[in-house]
Amino acid sequence: MTQRKLRLGAFIMATGHHIAAWRHPGSQADAGINIDHYVQLAQTAERGLFDQVFVADSPGQRHRGDEDSLSRQGRVSYFEPVTLWAALSQVTRHIGFVATASTTYEDPYLLARKFASLDHISKGRAAWNVVTTSADNVHGNFGLAAHPDPAARYARAHEFVEVVKGLWDSFEDDAFVRDASTGVYFDPRKLHALNHVGKHFKVEGPLNIERPPQGHPVIVQAGSSEDGKELAAATAEAIFTAWTSREEAQAFYTDVKGRMAKYGRRPEQLLVLPGISPVIGRTEEEARAKWAELQALIHPSVGLNVLQPFWPHDDLSRWDLDAPPPYYPEPPQGVNSRAHVVIQLARRERFTVRQLYEYLAGARGHWVVVGTPAQIADQMQDWFEHGAADGFNVMPPVLPQSLDEFVDLVVPELQRRGLFRTAYEGRTLRENLGLARPASRYANPAAQAA
Amino acid sequence: MTQRKLRLGAFIMATGHHIAAWRHPGSQADAGINIDHYVQLAQTAERGLFDQVFVADSPGQRHRGDEDSLSRQGRVSYFEPVTLWAALSQVTRHIGFVATASTTYEDPYLLARKFASLDHISKGRAAWNVVTTSADNVHGNFGLAAHPDPAARYARAHEFVEVVKGLWDSFEDDAFVRDASTGVYFDPRKLHALNHVGKHFKVEGPLNIERPPQGHPVIVQAGSSEDGKELAAATAEAIFTAWTSREEAQAFYTDVKGRMAKYGRRPEQLLVLPGISPVIGRTEEEARAKWAELQALIHPSVGLNVLQPFWPHDDLSRWDLDAPPPYYPEPPQGVNSRAHVVIQLARRERFTVRQLYEYLAGARGHWVVVGTPAQIADQMQDWFEHGAADGFNVMPPVLPQSLDEFVDLVVPELQRRGLFRTAYEGRTLRENLGLARPASRYANPAAQAA
Repeated sequence: MTQRKLRLGAFIMATGHHIAAWRHPGSQADAGINIDHYVQLAQTAERGLFDQVFVADSPGQRHRGDEDSLSRQGRVSYFEPVTLWAALSQVTRHIGFVATASTTYEDPYLLARKFASLDHISKGRAAWNVVTTSADNVHGNFGLAAHPDPAARYARAHEFVEVVKGLWDSFEDDAFVRDASTGVYFDPRKLHALNHVGKHFKVEGPLNIERPPQGHPVIVQAGSSEDGKELAAATAEAIFTAWTSREEAQAFYTDVKGRMAKYGRRPEQLLVLPGISPVIGRTEEEARAKWAELQALIHPSVGLNVLQPFWPHDDLSRWDLDAPPPYYPEPPQGVNSRAHVVIQLARRERFTVRQLYEYLAGARGHWVVVGTPAQIADQMQDWFEHGAADGFNVMPPVLPQSLDEFVDLVVPELQRRGLFRTAYEGRTLRENLGLARPASRYANPAAQAA
Repeated sequence: MTQRKLRLGAFIMATGHHIAAWRHPGSQADAGINIDHYVQLAQTAERGLFDQVFVADSPGQRHRGDEDSLSRQGRVSYFEPVTLWAALSQVTRHIGFVATASTTYEDPYLLARKFASLDHISKGRAAWNVVTTSADNVHGNFGLAAHPDPAARYARAHEFVEVVKGLWDSFEDDAFVRDASTGVYFDPRKLHALNHVGKHFKVEGPLNIERPPQGHPVIVQAGSSEDGKELAAATAEAIFTAWTSREEAQAFYTDVKGRMAKYGRRPEQLLVLPGISPVIGRTEEEARAKWAELQALIHPSVGLNVLQPFWPHDDLSRWDLDAPPPYYPEPPQGVNSRAHVVIQLARRERFTVRQLYEYLAGARGHWVVVGTPAQIADQMQDWFEHGAADGFNVMPPVLPQSLDEFVDLVVPELQRRGLFRTAYEGRTLRENLGLARPASRYANPAAQAA
């Protein structure tokens, strides 16, 4: 039997995951709107045989609050993900593209269509990261008086995903004849109107593009709240998640995979991919020095601004940066699944305010591993072999530098251990991830069995 | 003074503009979802120094009606335009990209964002063809009980375009400092929330992407109804239009440019680009033979289906194909601006039913010119020099073949006459089209004057 291989995604967020990354000489300061930068990142990730690249997204802009802190942050101007990946599909051949898009603020027909288009354009390399959008700075862009609460957002998300999948099936796989001699282009009996009527949507269909090469683009999910885990168990084929200890990651892994049976799904149909932000040195000392160099670039007003959402009613500028926070807030229920992780961590580790904001800023609540390639591979192997991960969403702290380092130093180490591929196995993202191509809901069961 | 140059767009609709194009050996039958085909077309158009490529679009699928006719038509499965152009931006350097998107069925924040993203990705080569969508097979995809009437659609369109332009101005051009030493990334005073509250939209903003390289992507419009002309006069920088005689085209040209002053605009801020579908032969005989070959590929059930919308209450299969239609319908007011052109033509030319559907099928009511490169250039020059056109939207009947022929045979003829460029003049689409870069609504007037 072939050894189980881990899956790797590259979360290539603009200048990098460290909040001060844009100030680092190893970054590209205008990364968010620099297409050449992203071409380089995608090609590097493909050189490293990554399964996929990924960007987070929100259809809104923070523009109120502490002006000094705001002026020092790089993540304010960036490409829309689907257009970005469509562009990069033409300068790569193998890597998959995970685009984030919101079920709360987008429309299912338009979304189904653009992802089907991306899947055709990339020849089967598209994935949709289904998010309900957690930010409160978005609803005003869409004429809403308030951001819908999590329960409402997730109810809509379940229906939204079903509608989108239904639209992707509008044409059966073998609908197109294209016989020039008889003049028959396609078989209209293999074109189906969805005629969906639900609580949130009424969508007639059919879609105006044939079934995507992958059947359906890969469905990804990234929330770890109760609602998020249910959505993942019901629909997702990969899940991005944030844990800082193996035990927490194991518990999550078991939990979310255990929820799948009630939706008629098997555990191997969902890949659990925790985030890891690796700071790589040829020696441990070099790695620690790199990390310290980065942390020193965080301006205190930026650091405190990162903490503000957790203590919304306090004036943090009065706090002693080198003492622990005066108290810990109760984690909000389901509103932001990362809050819980962060608060637990700070309590457990007795962080000072500065340590807490430095920790958060460095990987935004994700798992930072500072060390040599072998030490980083040790950690990944440990999680991978002990029921905590099927692979990882790699979050390079500084881009492009840290991705180059990961590809040049950590990937070969993983390959030596037999944990990671040495060549792409398939033509589509699904094939590389080992995920089955979904059958059309209209396909003849007898024909499928044949 | 430099000679005035004509502008050329390539309307690269999948297999070509002729309805039976997909059956022709010079076409690519699966063109609509074949990205390599579109790469070839865009590179050919760029080799021919075209200003831009264009595709029409509608967010819906025809799926009811005559099944035999439906099964014989190629335009049922095709890329979404913005994803298509984003992809092609990476395999071209100069050509502009005109993407059609609907103000009736899209959302202004999401639309502003994706076009800004496309403009950054393409380094200033994006244009938006503003359509209100005329098809009745779309509203059901968006939960609406009926397709809004033209007046409602155009009222929404005016407001939609203003909102989108306002969002594109969210960041001033010089908002980004990106000074690593001081840690200041941008100047928050140069980030503006739109706070639009109108009849159709309430949009707070700001956009989460900096001002597009072109300031605003180029605004294109394609309706020739009264409402369409007003929208063009108010907002468009290029207009696609359909005329089959120079006199009609002249009247339109004068009419639409004459409406601009009341919006504070000058005639040269709007380029009028009639469609032309050229059938090119090295001799006139060869051109006529090519045309006849194409027309013979039209199946009668497809031809009659093209006519059905103009006689919606008649059973056309009972008509004599080789006699004129038994009567002519009154052109609907403003519903479909092409209908008027078509009916006038059929009356004037005393077409038989077969001739009428062949005419319509060949260029869908646009101007077909069958002849040698010199004859085609003669016609274009005549319209261009007599106040009927600032350039043309070239609609090749068969793709890729007819575009290759145009670039190889007609472009050199236009260049010899001094009517067309021999190299791209600018870096952006605006610069090539000779259109000024719009100033931000927030820019300091004093600084602008300096």
